[in-house]
Amino acid sequence: MGKYVFGIDVGGTTIKCGLFQTDGTLLEKWEIPTRTENSGEAILPDIAESVKAKISERGLNKDEIVGVGIDVPGPVNEKGELSVAVNLNWGYKDIVGELSGHLDGMKVKAANDANAAALGEMWAGGGKGTKSLVMVTLGTGVGGGIIVDGKIVAGAHGAGGEIGHACVDPEEETQCNCGNHGCLEQMASATGIARLAKKYLASHDTPSSLRSRGDSISAKAVFDALKEGDQAAAEIVEEFSEYLGNALAIFSSVVDPEVFVIGGGVSKAGQILIDGVRKYYQRDAFVSCKDTPIVLADLGNDAGIYGAARMLLD
Amino acid sequence: MGKYVFGIDVGGTTIKCGLFQTDGTLLEKWEIPTRTENSGEAILPDIAESVKAKISERGLNKDEIVGVGIDVPGPVNEKGELSVAVNLNWGYKDIVGELSGHLDGMKVKAANDANAAALGEMWAGGGKGTKSLVMVTLGTGVGGGIIVDGKIVAGAHGAGGEIGHACVDPEEETQCNCGNHGCLEQMASATGIARLAKKYLASHDTPSSLRSRGDSISAKAVFDALKEGDQAAAEIVEEFSEYLGNALAIFSSVVDPEVFVIGGGVSKAGQILIDGVRKYYQRDAFVSCKDTPIVLADLGNDAGIYGAARMLLD
Repeated sequence: MGKYVFGIDVGGTTIKCGLFQTDGTLLEKWEIPTRTENSGEAILPDIAESVKAKISERGLNKDEIVGVGIDVPGPVNEKGELSVAVNLNWGYKDIVGELSGHLDGMKVKAANDANAAALGEMWAGGGKGTKSLVMVTLGTGVGGGIIVDGKIVAGAHGAGGEIGHACVDPEEETQCNCGNHGCLEQMASATGIARLAKKYLASHDTPSSLRSRGDSISAKAVFDALKEGDQAAAEIVEEFSEYLGNALAIFSSVVDPEVFVIGGGVSKAGQILIDGVRKYYQRDAFVSCKDTPIVLADLGNDAGIYGAARMLLD
Repeated sequence: MGKYVFGIDVGGTTIKCGLFQTDGTLLEKWEIPTRTENSGEAILPDIAESVKAKISERGLNKDEIVGVGIDVPGPVNEKGELSVAVNLNWGYKDIVGELSGHLDGMKVKAANDANAAALGEMWAGGGKGTKSLVMVTLGTGVGGGIIVDGKIVAGAHGAGGEIGHACVDPEEETQCNCGNHGCLEQMASATGIARLAKKYLASHDTPSSLRSRGDSISAKAVFDALKEGDQAAAEIVEEFSEYLGNALAIFSSVVDPEVFVIGGGVSKAGQILIDGVRKYYQRDAFVSCKDTPIVLADLGNDAGIYGAARMLLD
């Protein structure tokens, strides 16, 4: 019976590593640099070496180790194959096969980073105790992960949980980075909220403390102004909340999760953000889903290593 | 090893029954009436009796029977519990426990009817050969079913696949039967398309053969007029197609299925409907999902018995 499992979260500059007990206890975490040069050819060997070193350092017996879960910033299909990860200089890669090869055949599973974070939040974070959730990560972009029956929904093209690119406003004229128009990311990411704020201020006369910021307006500034009673900020957050709340309601008509978990930098605004989104979620959700909880994520930057490890425990 | 499996599709007036081989061959199908009187208390005993009679008639050995799958018109959660089925006069019911009790402990699984139809289409219909799909049934209402990794997504409240109540237009003033405003069902069901048509004709001067129909306009009439080159019909179908195509694009950002399957009475319009919907799907879908096939359902009214049976074969 395995007692230990590794979770590896690969980012563009740093690789986070975690050694867990199979009961979810994080025993130790550490980081190694991501060496992206030469098409990132050193990344998987570096990870294997770090895992082996940890096994040896702790004198672990290989039979006690369930395996290694790894997540990366790019679409990974159900077989653990990556199509592309721009930030790692990787094109197509059979992550599972290669990493397992470097680890003498140890069991490996791979996923997209946002999907792994969702699974981590289910295991030990905001969705603890559930088996299905939708996670939304509101950062520079909008990421997401869908968990059904305790497992990541990777999708036929590795695009499961790509909810940042749900087209919530086809009439939007500004183009999203993905090439489409009106993606949720354009409305609900940190950048998106700043964009909504600039548009609002340019088209309304409402006095606002935000005006003094000019072009350097940020999502954080908008939520800070809201907390100070700023009327324009309230209306900007209302617009954001309607977009996100409506989108969550649509998602609930698809997978009807036990809980929605909201993470990422923007979610640091806290309960006031949740309350705004819930108002529109409840307006638009199907009757039997109106009370589905919407909660804040709990694990912060550790969600990835938790989720990566949890993949091995099915 | 089981060789046979029963699939039972319970409707408000008729119960469809099918006996299948586990390889998907439908050996025989038959119907019994749905006795909804006295809170529908006879329905499950009637089904059990019909299954037992078939076993005896064919001289089947009980060891050869994998079990009985049953679907009903109402929300069924992952445990096979129904919360309510108005058309059967049923409130909460432990379908699995009760039916299995009437069948001497035979294995039973239960699901919502639209979800079972989706699984049926995966097994033997428009989605044959895939393990994930989104099915949309365009009938009097809009039903749906989500299949991930070969299994129905039932949802925490039995509302998985309730895509007819995805709120695609919060600004819509007319109320949906569910109490919300702007549900997909109000735009894409047979009734919804007729509604769009009446609204269009009332607010435009475009000459149209549809005007002679007055209030008796139907979705079929709209598609028939489209095929005859009617300009108003073309614009009405365009509106329907944009709503449905955009909705499918959002669904693909959630579960990224291998295929979309379109069924129900409205889908008899055929390829011209698919082509219209695909145009807007491709406009709004995330780049890696733009080529996901959208196909017509294949099994018609038999999808339910196929899917109900298939649940037993995991």
